[in-house]
Amino acid sequence: MEKVLVFGHQNPDTDTITSAIVYAYLKNAIGVEAEAVRLGELNNETKYALEKFGFEAPRLIKNVETEATKVILVDHNEKQQSAIGIEEVQITEVIDHHRIANFETADPLYYRAEPVGCTATIINKIFKEKGVDIPSNIAGLMLSAIVSDTLLFKSPTCTEEDITAARELEKMAGVNVEEYGLAMLKAGADLSDKSLEDLLSLDAKEFSMGEHKVIIAQVNAVDVNDVMGRQGQLEELINLEIQEKELDLFFFVVTDILNNDSVALALGKMALKAETAFNVTFVNNVALLKGVVSRKKQVVPALTEALAE
Amino acid sequence: MEKVLVFGHQNPDTDTITSAIVYAYLKNAIGVEAEAVRLGELNNETKYALEKFGFEAPRLIKNVETEATKVILVDHNEKQQSAIGIEEVQITEVIDHHRIANFETADPLYYRAEPVGCTATIINKIFKEKGVDIPSNIAGLMLSAIVSDTLLFKSPTCTEEDITAARELEKMAGVNVEEYGLAMLKAGADLSDKSLEDLLSLDAKEFSMGEHKVIIAQVNAVDVNDVMGRQGQLEELINLEIQEKELDLFFFVVTDILNNDSVALALGKMALKAETAFNVTFVNNVALLKGVVSRKKQVVPALTEALAE
Repeated sequence: MEKVLVFGHQNPDTDTITSAIVYAYLKNAIGVEAEAVRLGELNNETKYALEKFGFEAPRLIKNVETEATKVILVDHNEKQQSAIGIEEVQITEVIDHHRIANFETADPLYYRAEPVGCTATIINKIFKEKGVDIPSNIAGLMLSAIVSDTLLFKSPTCTEEDITAARELEKMAGVNVEEYGLAMLKAGADLSDKSLEDLLSLDAKEFSMGEHKVIIAQVNAVDVNDVMGRQGQLEELINLEIQEKELDLFFFVVTDILNNDSVALALGKMALKAETAFNVTFVNNVALLKGVVSRKKQVVPALTEALAE
Repeated sequence: MEKVLVFGHQNPDTDTITSAIVYAYLKNAIGVEAEAVRLGELNNETKYALEKFGFEAPRLIKNVETEATKVILVDHNEKQQSAIGIEEVQITEVIDHHRIANFETADPLYYRAEPVGCTATIINKIFKEKGVDIPSNIAGLMLSAIVSDTLLFKSPTCTEEDITAARELEKMAGVNVEEYGLAMLKAGADLSDKSLEDLLSLDAKEFSMGEHKVIIAQVNAVDVNDVMGRQGQLEELINLEIQEKELDLFFFVVTDILNNDSVALALGKMALKAETAFNVTFVNNVALLKGVVSRKKQVVPALTEALAE
């Protein structure tokens, strides 16, 4: 049987990388040959998690078409967030927790999406349904994903199911989730080795909203001024990217992981719509978004609605 | 909490109707207020199944927008197969076994698709996962759906999982599946009370294939000549529909439920592509498709590929 590749979205985050590793492990355990791969560079948070639980980074691939004929997507479904060549391969499964859009198949498939905070929470259920035991280091990866996606349970995307899963996995992994989780988030919020280009691309996702092409980039920080202190240079880079990619909006979100607020920088010809979306005034293109930490649950729906008008 | 509506596709078949009833039952059992509704008239097979197990037809709705704000789709996802107004309501769940296409949400949702022969096979799993008992009459409906979608396990869409589920449900329902199943299929293949218009619309589904607009209608028959004997009148009606709906292809499939073959009638400006699709010659617009019984697994993929060229 041909090997199936398992991967998450471009600009990988901790859930995308660990869910690829964990789901490939699960498939192998039930006799399906699978390999986790990645579509981009690891961030510091993910590196911290992999090192803690003794995993290597998955192999980097560029064009999926030359690598496989069958693939499994985790933590995403929209094709513009997926691998180059995705339209030329068969997607046999999707395990995800996002909205569904720009996704189409010719054949029936296994598609498992649930409105929970993290892909790992769904995979935890599938382990049980398939009767496969979760080793300690795999549990650690899944726990890392939940901590990352829910900002240690503080994000509005966090559900009771995520917390229950995390408590189960915490025991299996043999760590204290509050202690380990904060250390992991801080490792991710350490931006000292990042260029401004890195900050804009590390966790950037592209969306179609109505007729508009939008990129929403997010970084976590312990002190948002570490990032926003360089607003002038950031704007130069963002404006270049808007021109190159013909974007209608570039929305850059810096999330304070200690206070659970975000500062947003909005540029592009639809930038004014961000005021409608969040009911705030942007001064010098910037606004504080009180209590906003989730791109998926707070930023995307608000901008989608404002841009549909 | 507001009631959520549960429904399957237009031109409902047995899986669509019974899965709506059964899934609404399951939601109610776990404390979610849900009502099964339908988007069209029942066929004779479905009437037979409902009567056998003591159920009324679900309420008929026209425009979902005036009925609810939240809905659950069973047995379909493509919006052109769904309710009028579907784009104005929130789809909170989908339970399906078809390809995914023309489907998009603004928010995360519960989406459960598996490449099995029947929606009821998936719902049978969800009953177990949720720990809800299946009453005898509900088991009877689910069994009817599996028999219908798999033509009593003879369709290539039928999987081991469908057969296993049917064997479990057979015991719960207290019937002999071979005996009951054949009686139900024959009730559905009784076309004596049907007009030609009925035959063309009873189980017709619309698809986008490449740039082309295609309708594929299917009827089951004990004797295909009961239907194809009136080819001239059928063609008149089909050509009218092609004109009205600006179709590129109308593909009418009459399936012999005893021999498990189909006779197809292809009309429209892309009709010649049907020859490529099935590697047969259509004589006077008609061809025998040996061993073809499944629209989903055999007809749709073959036409999709031929029309993509």
